[in-house]
Amino acid sequence: MLGRVNHVAIAVPDLASAAESYRSTLGANVTEPQALPEHGVTVVFVTLPNTKVELLEPLGEASPIAAFLAKNPAGGMHHICYEVADIIAARDRLKQAGARVLGDGTPKIGAHGKPVLFLHPKDFQGTLIELEQV
Amino acid sequence: MLGRVNHVAIAVPDLASAAESYRSTLGANVTEPQALPEHGVTVVFVTLPNTKVELLEPLGEASPIAAFLAKNPAGGMHHICYEVADIIAARDRLKQAGARVLGDGTPKIGAHGKPVLFLHPKDFQGTLIELEQV
Repeated sequence: MLGRVNHVAIAVPDLASAAESYRSTLGANVTEPQALPEHGVTVVFVTLPNTKVELLEPLGEASPIAAFLAKNPAGGMHHICYEVADIIAARDRLKQAGARVLGDGTPKIGAHGKPVLFLHPKDFQGTLIELEQV
Repeated sequence: MLGRVNHVAIAVPDLASAAESYRSTLGANVTEPQALPEHGVTVVFVTLPNTKVELLEPLGEASPIAAFLAKNPAGGMHHICYEVADIIAARDRLKQAGARVLGDGTPKIGAHGKPVLFLHPKDFQGTLIELEQV
């Protein structure tokens, strides 16, 4: 069921400074910041040869990463996103296996314009997993 | 400087149960457990089409992931490993930029038999970064 790792997301308190450290110190390709107000984040992509890392800074009042940064003020790895071919089939299989899908189980349109779901970290060893249909 | 994401490492309290949840619930290919006493972990690899996830369980008294699991008893994302072409050049560039390399700065032979270094999470937004020369 799991396909490629689409991205690893890192929540950061200061996007400009994080982007600069990946660009200058680590020598990676980093895109310009994109504000995604409907997702409550501003993002830059660190593009690697086989996948990408997304650096996320909270945007607006109800950012989904605000609570994480309150607990981890320096930032940290927030979630990992796997590609799936059929998100409805994936959801049904997961629910059947007793895994909790966050929200009402209806895929939302994610930051890349594709349907996504998040799985409860308590069911996967403390790791927040995003599934994205590609 | 940064090349491919070699792996994402997730520390888990119970490797058998974590491996089973990736295999059965998430439908991924998971290898048999390998004990790496010299690294203080037992590991399974979740092999994805473009990279891998390593599930790590502490092994022995002085496991490098013991403190992380004491703080995060359910487990969680522990580090991300990037490939570099020349680990000495990478280290020197990082030190020049003021980033802290863990230990004495001498690459060790990592779990894949290749030279590795770890960078201080405080210099990279709370993320523990491993560099592996490939």
